[in-house]
Amino acid sequence: MEKLYDRLKELYPEMVKIRRHLHENPELSFEEVETPKYIAAYHEELGHDVRRNVGGRGVVAVLRGGKPGKTVALRADFDALPIQEENDVEYRSKVDGVMHACGHDGHTATLLVLAKVLNRLKDELEGTIVFIHQHAEELAPGGAISMIEDGCLDGVDVIFGTHLWAVTPFGCIEHRTGPFMAAADKFDIVIQGKGGHGAQPHLTKDAVVIGSQLVMNLQQLVSRRVNPLDAAVLSVGAFEAVNAFNVIADTAKITGTVRTFKEDVRALMEREIERVVKGTCLSADAGYSFSYKRGYPAVVNHKEETEFVARVAQDVPGVVKVVEGEPQMGGEDFAYYLEHVKGTFFYTGAQDENWSETYPHHHPKFNIDERAMLVAANTLGAAAITYLKEASKNAEAAV
Amino acid sequence: MEKLYDRLKELYPEMVKIRRHLHENPELSFEEVETPKYIAAYHEELGHDVRRNVGGRGVVAVLRGGKPGKTVALRADFDALPIQEENDVEYRSKVDGVMHACGHDGHTATLLVLAKVLNRLKDELEGTIVFIHQHAEELAPGGAISMIEDGCLDGVDVIFGTHLWAVTPFGCIEHRTGPFMAAADKFDIVIQGKGGHGAQPHLTKDAVVIGSQLVMNLQQLVSRRVNPLDAAVLSVGAFEAVNAFNVIADTAKITGTVRTFKEDVRALMEREIERVVKGTCLSADAGYSFSYKRGYPAVVNHKEETEFVARVAQDVPGVVKVVEGEPQMGGEDFAYYLEHVKGTFFYTGAQDENWSETYPHHHPKFNIDERAMLVAANTLGAAAITYLKEASKNAEAAV
Amino acid sequence: MEKLYDRLKELYPEMVKIRRHLHENPELSFEEVETPKYIAAYHEELGHDVRRNVGGRGVVAVLRGGKPGKTVALRADFDALPIQEENDVEYRSKVDGVMHACGHDGHTATLLVLAKVLNRLKDELEGTIVFIHQHAEELAPGGAISMIEDGCLDGVDVIFGTHLWAVTPFGCIEHRTGPFMAAADKFDIVIQGKGGHGAQPHLTKDAVVIGSQLVMNLQQLVSRRVNPLDAAVLSVGAFEAVNAFNVIADTAKITGTVRTFKEDVRALMEREIERVVKGTCLSADAGYSFSYKRGYPAVVNHKEETEFVARVAQDVPGVVKVVEGEPQMGGEDFAYYLEHVKGTFFYTGAQDENWSETYPHHHPKFNIDERAMLVAANTLGAAAITYLKEASKNAEAAV
Amino acid sequence: MEKLYDRLKELYPEMVKIRRHLHENPELSFEEVETPKYIAAYHEELGHDVRRNVGGRGVVAVLRGGKPGKTVALRADFDALPIQEENDVEYRSKVDGVMHACGHDGHTATLLVLAKVLNRLKDELEGTIVFIHQHAEELAPGGAISMIEDGCLDGVDVIFGTHLWAVTPFGCIEHRTGPFMAAADKFDIVIQGKGGHGAQPHLTKDAVVIGSQLVMNLQQLVSRRVNPLDAAVLSVGAFEAVNAFNVIADTAKITGTVRTFKEDVRALMEREIERVVKGTCLSADAGYSFSYKRGYPAVVNHKEETEFVARVAQDVPGVVKVVEGEPQMGGEDFAYYLEHVKGTFFYTGAQDENWSETYPHHHPKFNIDERAMLVAANTLGAAAITYLKEASKNAEAAV
Repeated sequence: MEKLYDRLKELYPEMVKIRRHLHENPELSFEEVETPKYIAAYHEELGHDVRRNVGGRGVVAVLRGGKPGKTVALRADFDALPIQEENDVEYRSKVDGVMHACGHDGHTATLLVLAKVLNRLKDELEGTIVFIHQHAEELAPGGAISMIEDGCLDGVDVIFGTHLWAVTPFGCIEHRTGPFMAAADKFDIVIQGKGGHGAQPHLTKDAVVIGSQLVMNLQQLVSRRVNPLDAAVLSVGAFEAVNAFNVIADTAKITGTVRTFKEDVRALMEREIERVVKGTCLSADAGYSFSYKRGYPAVVNHKEETEFVARVAQDVPGVVKVVEGEPQMGGEDFAYYLEHVKGTFFYTGAQDENWSETYPHHHPKFNIDERAMLVAANTLGAAAITYLKEASKNAEAAV
Repeated sequence: MEKLYDRLKELYPEMVKIRRHLHENPELSFEEVETPKYIAAYHEELGHDVRRNVGGRGVVAVLRGGKPGKTVALRADFDALPIQEENDVEYRSKVDGVMHACGHDGHTATLLVLAKVLNRLKDELEGTIVFIHQHAEELAPGGAISMIEDGCLDGVDVIFGTHLWAVTPFGCIEHRTGPFMAAADKFDIVIQGKGGHGAQPHLTKDAVVIGSQLVMNLQQLVSRRVNPLDAAVLSVGAFEAVNAFNVIADTAKITGTVRTFKEDVRALMEREIERVVKGTCLSADAGYSFSYKRGYPAVVNHKEETEFVARVAQDVPGVVKVVEGEPQMGGEDFAYYLEHVKGTFFYTGAQDENWSETYPHHHPKFNIDERAMLVAANTLGAAAITYLKEASKNAEAAV
Repeated sequence: MEKLYDRLKELYPEMVKIRRHLHENPELSFEEVETPKYIAAYHEELGHDVRRNVGGRGVVAVLRGGKPGKTVALRADFDALPIQEENDVEYRSKVDGVMHACGHDGHTATLLVLAKVLNRLKDELEGTIVFIHQHAEELAPGGAISMIEDGCLDGVDVIFGTHLWAVTPFGCIEHRTGPFMAAADKFDIVIQGKGGHGAQPHLTKDAVVIGSQLVMNLQQLVSRRVNPLDAAVLSVGAFEAVNAFNVIADTAKITGTVRTFKEDVRALMEREIERVVKGTCLSADAGYSFSYKRGYPAVVNHKEETEFVARVAQDVPGVVKVVEGEPQMGGEDFAYYLEHVKGTFFYTGAQDENWSETYPHHHPKFNIDERAMLVAANTLGAAAITYLKEASKNAEAAV
Repeated sequence: MEKLYDRLKELYPEMVKIRRHLHENPELSFEEVETPKYIAAYHEELGHDVRRNVGGRGVVAVLRGGKPGKTVALRADFDALPIQEENDVEYRSKVDGVMHACGHDGHTATLLVLAKVLNRLKDELEGTIVFIHQHAEELAPGGAISMIEDGCLDGVDVIFGTHLWAVTPFGCIEHRTGPFMAAADKFDIVIQGKGGHGAQPHLTKDAVVIGSQLVMNLQQLVSRRVNPLDAAVLSVGAFEAVNAFNVIADTAKITGTVRTFKEDVRALMEREIERVVKGTCLSADAGYSFSYKRGYPAVVNHKEETEFVARVAQDVPGVVKVVEGEPQMGGEDFAYYLEHVKGTFFYTGAQDENWSETYPHHHPKFNIDERAMLVAANTLGAAAITYLKEASKNAEAAV
């Protein structure tokens, strides 16, 4: 393992270079063109089997080890966000209104350089490593689902992924068995009242009042209907009834998000929102349309694989602390991989201790402590190698 | 007419005496025993045809004039209220917790003495006068409805009634064509939730929250569904969910009143309350029971008869001002008489100008300026005599 | 008076022609150019004293009668609305998106032809007639207020005005003493919450929820705080919180209108709205801005002048019925004139009995029964002439 | 340890007998007289140092082992509930309206017999055992707090306690590090509106509407202000505004409970409830009183001691499964002991697998599988002995 760590350390400058290159040239979800080309070319140069346009715009590269064994997948996402960068750095985004504000540039740089190093160590590898470079993590339905349909997990035994996490201190690895990131759904409601003149409410069905009543009534789902020991969020993001002041609204559009960790809570929220909409509109003799779009499911880490990574991470250079992390209400389409194969998703702390202020993910001033890429590469690399090694040993023992 | 006024003036002391006697001996609605006896005896002594127990506890006395003609009914109610008197007067109520706090004692004294005077003038009367002494005005369903069913209006051409009105200055007569006093209805709602432990809302259907939501939603009936030019009131008087602090309520009882002046508004309120109850409970998957009990309808004065009384009142001794009164949200079962025969109900100001403070009807310190009884008797008497006289003249003219 | 009626009848075709010319060439409030030119030219041709650009774009013409006397003002408004006409008539609006959808074209045609006829009768006129052609009735602050400031009422004793009313049957004149059209105000509220991610409500102050709570709480002003016998409307026309679905709103904009007939109710509404905004925002620790802009006050007709017009209207050709009209929740800046001089504003029924459907004012298919212009001219003319005549007689009698 | 288990098994019939005796003779919280006498006598007979009336009605007995060492406290509570038993068993409660419906009879029987057995093994005990028999667990402020003040924990190094848990299967031990049972607080709000007649809302401040608004607004505390990853419950148990239907309420009493696991969440709830009350009342210009009474804090188990018990329990006869339990929203004043000394509180499954239906704690048909007492005694006994033994060993090692 020392070879892994040493060579990654040597190539850290390349990692930074790649990350900054990507940072300067961000591409939006489902619009990635140059980034996948760049990734594919890098792997091809290493001699990996490369498949482009996997599930749309994804890239999958395969490194076969010198010895037979299991197959480990490592995943990095590579899309950026529609945010105008406000950082004043040399490698600032060159694309107006688009920015790597979630660290996917770092994920990709980490995985590419790790691939190069693993390639150099391939003779000792007891199995195969699949590098999954995923497009469109930021925008539902996400890239994972179509990449899986397109076979990116075929033959894969286990998958590992990490997120560089700017609100966790550098040197810290956060893992958690079970629900780790929430299911993130979207609902759209249109209240169909009956518009009219502001002076004649009795001839109308006031969509603003009905909508307001609905927003109030929806508060009870979390406060009354969800088990208080289960986490759930319902937020109405938008309430749109844009009219002249002396008009009574014909319609009101209400759009929001639901976050949950358990399937039964998620199903309850969907069912109960519709019930509340139905009852509220009935109260006012109004009509409605309701749609509930399920986004990414919850990221539910597998126990054995999570404990495995936690164990491996203890000895990784740069790792100061390995802790159980709190679940997060944010969503991740890594969730889909974990529905198909065993694996785990963990956070690699990327908060620079010298920052006076930390900006959260998706903020125009978001940034990462780049050294975290090396920690992430070390951990993913160690996990992959160790996993293959232990699997071989177990297989022998079983014979 | 001078004879009428003069004799009434002479007998004013008797009027006061009778009123104070009744005041000392109040009887609750539907429990009147001595009062109707007293009334019947008074009329019998005058030689009137008297019918007791009309529609339960009412008394009807008939005075036939010396000449043929129409029939005028004059009505006074005689029940008292379950209120503990707080006035410090000689003639204070002798019955604990029962009080003539609405002036019905005065109504009765007025009508009895007026009957005595009209009796003396009977030779000149061109028709018949029916004295309707009604029980139970204060408690739904009221005495009027059963007295009518029992024939108290048989043969009656027109009815006049007045209320001694302690919040209108002495000397003032208030009349109004059309809706004058509101329909007063009652609704009872029981929210059937599902009780449980305060720490486990998800296993319950919280009747307190559902009930609160209902109360809020009901506000929209007046604010949004009733024509703003129509008057309507919906008040929830009681919200009962009496439980330990750490329990979630199984049921909530919500009781209230609705006041309206028009039948279509009344019907709308009844229909829409149920709609709101239904929708609100549906929102929470709860059950409910709902009942709506119509109380007295609105007092809707007839135009011709109202203008007639207004005209007559101009010349009545003691009347300083005859004005159009504002409608009142309070109810009166005089309404029923006006659904059967023409007529009008008016207020006779009974506020003493020397009072430092005026207490409203139904207050433990309610009182009347007793001189208002004389004004009321003058006005009712003049109205009756004039009505009969004009009717005769018209009849002759028509021949 | 027969001369008046006969000559108006003769000139009815001209009235129609003028109305249709104006209908084809509508101009928006405060943007009127050709219409006032046209009006001024018409009066100048009649030899009237004409003042242009009164209070901005208004026109005032004066006709001095052959005999001395009082001064009567007659007012017609002439602006159009930002509505795309949907009528399929020959004289359809030639201006895209602008339409005489409130009958002001008819008001102006009525007043111009009436001016021509009165001019012919001027020798017999016992006083002066001022023709007030007002711009910008449809848009606050309206033209009346500036025309008054610019002297249009100087020397005026009384003012009469009418509205051609498409929802009242042809032949009907509606008058009402006291409040006839409502005060129409506007309020603007901005809830200043604290935005954030939809998954992290605890780090935010959710402006959508606060705004919804506010809308619900505002319902209580009409349902609980206004005397049920007083009319009041509060309508929220717009609720704007336009965000992505997974965001929590930073601000919510809430805009609406208040309609009242009495100054104390109006003041109560203004005061209580702010109280509710303040309390609701305090509940949520949020900030707010609040502004309340008073629009036109209520049109409060003077008693004597209203009864005068009702009396005069009885004998006007074409008038089938003179009735007391219900108050309307809509606003009119005729209100300002009535704050300065005596007078009255009435409706002239303009609903064609042959219509299969009646479209309300401000509807793209709004139209009038043009014969109503003749009725309006007859009534206004008769009112003016009679008023002057009676005033002269009274003056003589007083001498 | 085998001796412990064997002797407990032998004495199981006595355990059952004691439990049934207590079950037949339940005593309410803070009214216990016979129960503590019984307990004290039992220990005195064993020769333990006994202190009566500790902190009021508690009993503390001390057993000094044959060898020096640490001090372990074991706690059992002994009060009953104001519930009418509905079980049809031989040992049914003899006291009308009072019942051991929470298993405290079993706790006491368990601890008494365990004390007898440990007494027999005292020569081998490497330290001291303190038996804490606590009164009044069911009623705030509870007995624990005063017993602690009265010295029951003096010299104690660690405390263990268990609850026989009728909704967990027999044979299962549930433990959990950190928050295990919730802090349970109570709030009382009185809305001071202004009462009046149901027909005149504008003269009142309607306490029912204000209270309903408050209940709705309070829903937002859990739905919007608490971190969705933290558990919190706010339940309004009672809403009392008991009036005639045609009255507007002067006051409304609103009482409820708050459950939380963390001090910051608890403080936030207390603070925010008052903010919402204040803002809601300000909206309506009403007054209020507000009090927030903190009940038991959360039971927060210490990590090392919890893991210790989980480890020990693995080998205890009768224990089939040792699992991490879910936190419970119910409260327990064992919380106070854990604020003073290290220790842990766990559940011993007492659900009989043969029951067709399980009744929850505090239900009139609540019962326990009595064999659970033996499991509890085994576990507590093994924990005490092992703890002392390991502490001695460590002490020696440290020398």
